[in-house]
Amino acid sequence: MAIVLGPHRYGKAETRLVRVTRDGETHTLTDLNVSIALSGDLAATHLTGDNSGVLPTDTMKNTVYAFAKKHGVGEPEEFALLLARHFLKTQGQVRAARVAIEAYGWDRLGPHSFRRQGGWTRVAEVVAMAERAQVVSGVTGLTLLNSTASEFHGFVRDRYTTLPETTDRILATAVDARWRHLGTEADWAASFDGALHALTNAFVNTYSLSLQQTLFAMGSYALHERPEIAEIRLALPNKHHYLVDLSVFDLTNDNEVFIAGDRPYGLIEGTVTRDDAPPALTEWYL
Amino acid sequence: MAIVLGPHRYGKAETRLVRVTRDGETHTLTDLNVSIALSGDLAATHLTGDNSGVLPTDTMKNTVYAFAKKHGVGEPEEFALLLARHFLKTQGQVRAARVAIEAYGWDRLGPHSFRRQGGWTRVAEVVAMAERAQVVSGVTGLTLLNSTASEFHGFVRDRYTTLPETTDRILATAVDARWRHLGTEADWAASFDGALHALTNAFVNTYSLSLQQTLFAMGSYALHERPEIAEIRLALPNKHHYLVDLSVFDLTNDNEVFIAGDRPYGLIEGTVTRDDAPPALTEWYL
Amino acid sequence: MAIVLGPHRYGKAETRLVRVTRDGETHTLTDLNVSIALSGDLAATHLTGDNSGVLPTDTMKNTVYAFAKKHGVGEPEEFALLLARHFLKTQGQVRAARVAIEAYGWDRLGPHSFRRQGGWTRVAEVVAMAERAQVVSGVTGLTLLNSTASEFHGFVRDRYTTLPETTDRILATAVDARWRHLGTEADWAASFDGALHALTNAFVNTYSLSLQQTLFAMGSYALHERPEIAEIRLALPNKHHYLVDLSVFDLTNDNEVFIAGDRPYGLIEGTVTRDDAPPALTEWYL
Amino acid sequence: MAIVLGPHRYGKAETRLVRVTRDGETHTLTDLNVSIALSGDLAATHLTGDNSGVLPTDTMKNTVYAFAKKHGVGEPEEFALLLARHFLKTQGQVRAARVAIEAYGWDRLGPHSFRRQGGWTRVAEVVAMAERAQVVSGVTGLTLLNSTASEFHGFVRDRYTTLPETTDRILATAVDARWRHLGTEADWAASFDGALHALTNAFVNTYSLSLQQTLFAMGSYALHERPEIAEIRLALPNKHHYLVDLSVFDLTNDNEVFIAGDRPYGLIEGTVTRDDAPPALTEWYL
Repeated sequence: MAIVLGPHRYGKAETRLVRVTRDGETHTLTDLNVSIALSGDLAATHLTGDNSGVLPTDTMKNTVYAFAKKHGVGEPEEFALLLARHFLKTQGQVRAARVAIEAYGWDRLGPHSFRRQGGWTRVAEVVAMAERAQVVSGVTGLTLLNSTASEFHGFVRDRYTTLPETTDRILATAVDARWRHLGTEADWAASFDGALHALTNAFVNTYSLSLQQTLFAMGSYALHERPEIAEIRLALPNKHHYLVDLSVFDLTNDNEVFIAGDRPYGLIEGTVTRDDAPPALTEWYL
Repeated sequence: MAIVLGPHRYGKAETRLVRVTRDGETHTLTDLNVSIALSGDLAATHLTGDNSGVLPTDTMKNTVYAFAKKHGVGEPEEFALLLARHFLKTQGQVRAARVAIEAYGWDRLGPHSFRRQGGWTRVAEVVAMAERAQVVSGVTGLTLLNSTASEFHGFVRDRYTTLPETTDRILATAVDARWRHLGTEADWAASFDGALHALTNAFVNTYSLSLQQTLFAMGSYALHERPEIAEIRLALPNKHHYLVDLSVFDLTNDNEVFIAGDRPYGLIEGTVTRDDAPPALTEWYL
Repeated sequence: MAIVLGPHRYGKAETRLVRVTRDGETHTLTDLNVSIALSGDLAATHLTGDNSGVLPTDTMKNTVYAFAKKHGVGEPEEFALLLARHFLKTQGQVRAARVAIEAYGWDRLGPHSFRRQGGWTRVAEVVAMAERAQVVSGVTGLTLLNSTASEFHGFVRDRYTTLPETTDRILATAVDARWRHLGTEADWAASFDGALHALTNAFVNTYSLSLQQTLFAMGSYALHERPEIAEIRLALPNKHHYLVDLSVFDLTNDNEVFIAGDRPYGLIEGTVTRDDAPPALTEWYL
Repeated sequence: MAIVLGPHRYGKAETRLVRVTRDGETHTLTDLNVSIALSGDLAATHLTGDNSGVLPTDTMKNTVYAFAKKHGVGEPEEFALLLARHFLKTQGQVRAARVAIEAYGWDRLGPHSFRRQGGWTRVAEVVAMAERAQVVSGVTGLTLLNSTASEFHGFVRDRYTTLPETTDRILATAVDARWRHLGTEADWAASFDGALHALTNAFVNTYSLSLQQTLFAMGSYALHERPEIAEIRLALPNKHHYLVDLSVFDLTNDNEVFIAGDRPYGLIEGTVTRDDAPPALTEWYL
């Protein structure tokens, strides 16, 4: 038996880039948080501290800023592909380059004036390897609520079950979604907007008997609407809204007054996929 | 010399209330975080644990939910006034009741469907005392950015000053503002919207030589636009965007590529007031 | 009626300083977060953008780092006094300089090795004005819990009161305390340690009929133990632990199984003071 | 081509449990955050809203509290095993049950008095399946710093590299570690303490040429010391401390004054494993 190095990667996380594009009087703003991770033949630095194969993470940061000037940024998927392919191509010891980007939205207030949105964050995650690359897009923090059209009953009851059945409840969640693209070329802006709208519309329009049902409806509809997507993963916290018992105060509460709970919360996670989707290029470790 | 009790107050903080109003098929949603603090003749519980003058904070929470049903919620200023006056009126030992509310905005997606906004939070703080009440409204987390039309020069230089002067920089801040109303009756929704727009417009339209100048412009314009406001306090972090030196990579950077800094940050705080504004009812302690 | 500038201040917030003192092989570590705010004759920059009285906040940051080298850091109160007096002395337009410091503790693991503590944060806030200076010390995030020796009963009951009385409950809080010193010279380390122990011991040893009673006991004991302290302010969230009703599962729960609640929480705030304490130099605004 | 359901799971996240054990006058405190996720034959609820195989997440929460009373809690690994096996055994449709626990440490101040630690959090993650179970232990938020004995040089330089080589720097990280046990029986408390000390000691005692080298030393030493561990994963942010250039103020800075940076940060991730370790029972999805 020996103790050996297993999977490993390294990089610069959370490089904060704001890129202004000045088109005459009218400016455009891109606001990104870029995280880079490289993997490959990096055993030496782990075993002996020999850094001859280690590109400094400081250099990765510099590259983000230099490329933002040299090539512009464009859509986050594009910029992630550009960066990932650069590190793969120029660093022979690297076998996989992962670039993950969070993009913060801003509303235009004037030619050079903006107000930051806060409702949700767009994300993109690219992995580039010798043979091919993989693009994942997504959204986090998209908080949706239906104040009715949600039931929950017919569930398993065991000796620890006290939950009453309900035919009318609030259903609320903060959508965390990632979808894998079939290819590496797309109209990324249209694809993201389309997926976002599909997810939102499916949430709104599904009469829900469980958050699982809503999850599957959201994923299916996104795949149905966006042929460029191979599969989608959703993590949906069930943001519980507890009906307040007002009867002790001689008041009725017909689903009008709720406590918005913090913890605990249900957490429903699932993947919806095309049955002929090609396998993913990589799992967590590159 | 003796050791004595000084100013004190107590209450229930952060009661999370979601109120659904069902107007036939179309629902309305109000999402609040309510904090209550009472002060008055409360020495006994401090000195001997005699709670005969202490309304439990649990009761305050119950009252929030019961009132939400009984009276509805309306604008946050109204609901805060209602609650504050209730505690003042019904608890003889209470001399001041403070109710602070955060109101989270939701966009409508359908008759009973909503998406939470995230850009900023509306706040209201009411203090009710025997003689009168005071209403403060405000906003937090309103993040604004001008990508030009901001200069900073002509400042003091001492031996620790290394900052270069600039005639073109990004100016960005996350507005934290509170404005005190002259009275306790107003069209609170219109007042808030008007103040928010005044603050935003002044930020956008001020050619800025310092964030202080922008602060005063924002406060003045809000007072100019909204006659119901006596004074306004602004706390404006200077969210620094550092120009990246790309010259080492043979690239120019004409105010295009920036690092969005986290810490440290400038913090500019100030009050703008009418010179005939009546004094505030109360400072921090009730 | 005119719209005018009211109280105002500005400065650099959250300058993160780590200072290593190398005493041969053995190093000492100081880890601070320094926030500076200056006030005085600063109307011009607000009204016209004339910055001739504005020392850049960037210079304040530089001064923190330069002074850390030149003078060393010592206790946070000392370093805050040093910085505040520097700005007051060298900037004629400044009438009050406020320096607030958070100090993060580290445990020693070896001559040059450390593990960051996380239990609580020590704070110091100094205001320097022409005539004199004021030193406030404090602690935040000190979370204490008694699993018994806490009762709550005999309180006011109104129609919204449903809370049962109890003679045995968990009492838990996260202490946020600030104490004002009588002078500007002290053995700051001993003073802080003494105050911290006094607060902690009073919490532990008080058989509590209300958190207010515990608050007063904590403040009194700190003043009793530390003659250099004029007054102390405490903000004590009542971190509720709800007894779980296990009777439906045919289990008793003799104060053994609790839900640790997040929100809402009680918030008990109060000042304990010497009756001959001189007035504070300044309130919130400098 | 069809759109189908892929891997999925659901459960109750972040059930906050405080368990007091009353051994006469002396109490013991356990403070946990319990997250449960079940997977198996759960297609029906996704596809049609048929909940006949869905144990409510509310029931999972109840079970946590009931079991805390009935069986006690013990070490987090034990409690997680107990809960996971319960759900696996009693719910025929469940094929894998995952229970993840965060355990918050408290220092004893008296027979029934405690102060919450804050330095790091102990975690345990159990997956139970029909054939066997898997236990992972870990720690998060363990922040360690060496103020010297760290170098970084000999790295790759490309056209975007500006980082100077150094033979003396601060090395600091916040350890996030998970280690998989070979079996499901162990002295969990001793195992955790041993692993924690091994990780800490290896950090302290490794003269570091790269954080990767330190990572491997930490993992190897933990495996060397604890024969019950099969493999360990480490995610080590490189918490950069930037040396301040004080030469412009005519001051030297011999590794004494540093800026503690927030973002970006390096992120070094790796696994250290026994070469004969059996494969893991499961990856992310159960």
